[in-house]
Amino acid sequence: MENFSIGVDLGGTNIKFASVSASGKIILEHRVPTEADKGPVRVIENMMTGILYLLSLNADAENAERLLGIGVGVPGVVSLDGGTLSYPPNLPGWQVVRLGDILKEKLFMAKKLSMPVFIENDANVAALGEDKFGAGRNLKTFLMITLGTGIGGGIIVDDKIFRGAHGAAGEIGHITVKYDGDAPANTGIRGSLESFIGQRQITEYTKKLLAKHPESKLHAMCGNDLSKLEPKLITEAAQRGDHTAIDVWSYVADVLGAGLGSVVSVLDIRKIVIGGGVAGAGDFVLKPALEQLKRYTLRSMHEGLQLIPAQLGNSAGVMGAAAQCI
Amino acid sequence: MENFSIGVDLGGTNIKFASVSASGKIILEHRVPTEADKGPVRVIENMMTGILYLLSLNADAENAERLLGIGVGVPGVVSLDGGTLSYPPNLPGWQVVRLGDILKEKLFMAKKLSMPVFIENDANVAALGEDKFGAGRNLKTFLMITLGTGIGGGIIVDDKIFRGAHGAAGEIGHITVKYDGDAPANTGIRGSLESFIGQRQITEYTKKLLAKHPESKLHAMCGNDLSKLEPKLITEAAQRGDHTAIDVWSYVADVLGAGLGSVVSVLDIRKIVIGGGVAGAGDFVLKPALEQLKRYTLRSMHEGLQLIPAQLGNSAGVMGAAAQCI
Repeated sequence: MENFSIGVDLGGTNIKFASVSASGKIILEHRVPTEADKGPVRVIENMMTGILYLLSLNADAENAERLLGIGVGVPGVVSLDGGTLSYPPNLPGWQVVRLGDILKEKLFMAKKLSMPVFIENDANVAALGEDKFGAGRNLKTFLMITLGTGIGGGIIVDDKIFRGAHGAAGEIGHITVKYDGDAPANTGIRGSLESFIGQRQITEYTKKLLAKHPESKLHAMCGNDLSKLEPKLITEAAQRGDHTAIDVWSYVADVLGAGLGSVVSVLDIRKIVIGGGVAGAGDFVLKPALEQLKRYTLRSMHEGLQLIPAQLGNSAGVMGAAAQCI
Repeated sequence: MENFSIGVDLGGTNIKFASVSASGKIILEHRVPTEADKGPVRVIENMMTGILYLLSLNADAENAERLLGIGVGVPGVVSLDGGTLSYPPNLPGWQVVRLGDILKEKLFMAKKLSMPVFIENDANVAALGEDKFGAGRNLKTFLMITLGTGIGGGIIVDDKIFRGAHGAAGEIGHITVKYDGDAPANTGIRGSLESFIGQRQITEYTKKLLAKHPESKLHAMCGNDLSKLEPKLITEAAQRGDHTAIDVWSYVADVLGAGLGSVVSVLDIRKIVIGGGVAGAGDFVLKPALEQLKRYTLRSMHEGLQLIPAQLGNSAGVMGAAAQCI
């Protein structure tokens, strides 16, 4: 039997759990509601319930020798000491919580289990998951960017998370792509990558294009209700040859290429793993984005430059969380 | 007597040499023409002549125990093995040269001296110089940006040069500040920081403003010959309260703040040391640039954010080169 660890993905709506083997197979999965509105004490109880449930289901888990530890991915900034989560924006009432220590103590109280507990920012965890089990398996150094409602990033250098001076490195969504741009994202940062190609902004952009293109298949595909527009539909339309849909993705690719260009110039990282909902557009985005990326970077940095689709999909959170223990 | 090392700053026009004490005092200086047009053999001869001259002048240098080594800063990409310089743009005919090994061998042939020889990119060397001897003395992690004809950068993490995956990290001049910008810099990278606020571009911007502002003091200050415009003059005009000149620097600050914002978001580095000719504008640029930088970054990253003037000035090259040995 293989060693394994337990990954916990703490989201604003659900907490996902999985026991993951050292070679990256999901053994068991579980999920419970976060109940974020009930505050940190309840959320931590819910985390414990899930962890204990997984341990009880899997008799192996009682074998402390093969359980490597618990890894948690959290939606917020984790201090460099590890284990302390500060002011997570989607978890009301949390302020500063020594989550690692608390979970360790509770595990010991409940099961007399003494084992490592790792806490890490969720974007970093997703990058680590791809590094250990996914698209980054054969890479030592890469950037992972997740294109969703928000745009997150994690930087892996020599197979380790690069945290920067204060632990919050990799905020790719907030890099500037247009200094005099006025589109404000949720964060209020003008001209940022997220303010142009966050999922909602892509939908808005598409709506504007559609107003000028009554011939687009997208009108019918969303039953003439543009509030139903989403990246998946736009990709389907592109696959069916719809020019408006293809134009949307090539616009996204242009902005993405410009933003990634800054990262390549600063870090000289040439492998970029792309995940998240928008990445579902595949080559409609990745191919033109690579071409654009080359326009925004020095020729001497083009060798080996590559955009790589992420592989872990919806399991990125739990698998990355578990990867911290391996 | 203190230990010392010899720093060599290989430029396109001149090679500068200095013996530098371990505490950062310049003991002796020297300079010779590079004669870049005569190719690598001659340039390396000129480097050796200067090094041997410094050694002969300084009797101390004969004392191999106190001479820590030779450090060289070069205008190009140095491979991660150290010592190999590839395709320096301003040194015709160089292609790939194992400069470190060659200098080591020649030193041994000439003086039976066997000692470490370090080769590093000049922007990285400038950052290292500030780290060891200048504005970065009390910092472990910072970005150094040099604002001149070109815009260069070096990243120091934990008092060491951060090279990225392929050795060329820190190309701050090429980060994107306006993805749909059309101003092309020398490198042909559109929308880059350098294409907006490289020294020549600042001058061009100023000329355009001056066409609309006949009342500006700058007209008289350059004898009504706008080809004489340079950053120093613009700063002098700003000091004398000229609104056009002040507007130029606040435009530069806006673009600079946007560009630095990307670096802060990606690296979570909060200390930025600013050198080069344009930095001579001091608070006319640094103060508004810090304000702008805050507009382009997450509030959670503002604590400790600081723009710091470089301290080594024209000696940055030789002192940084020497710093490699310490």
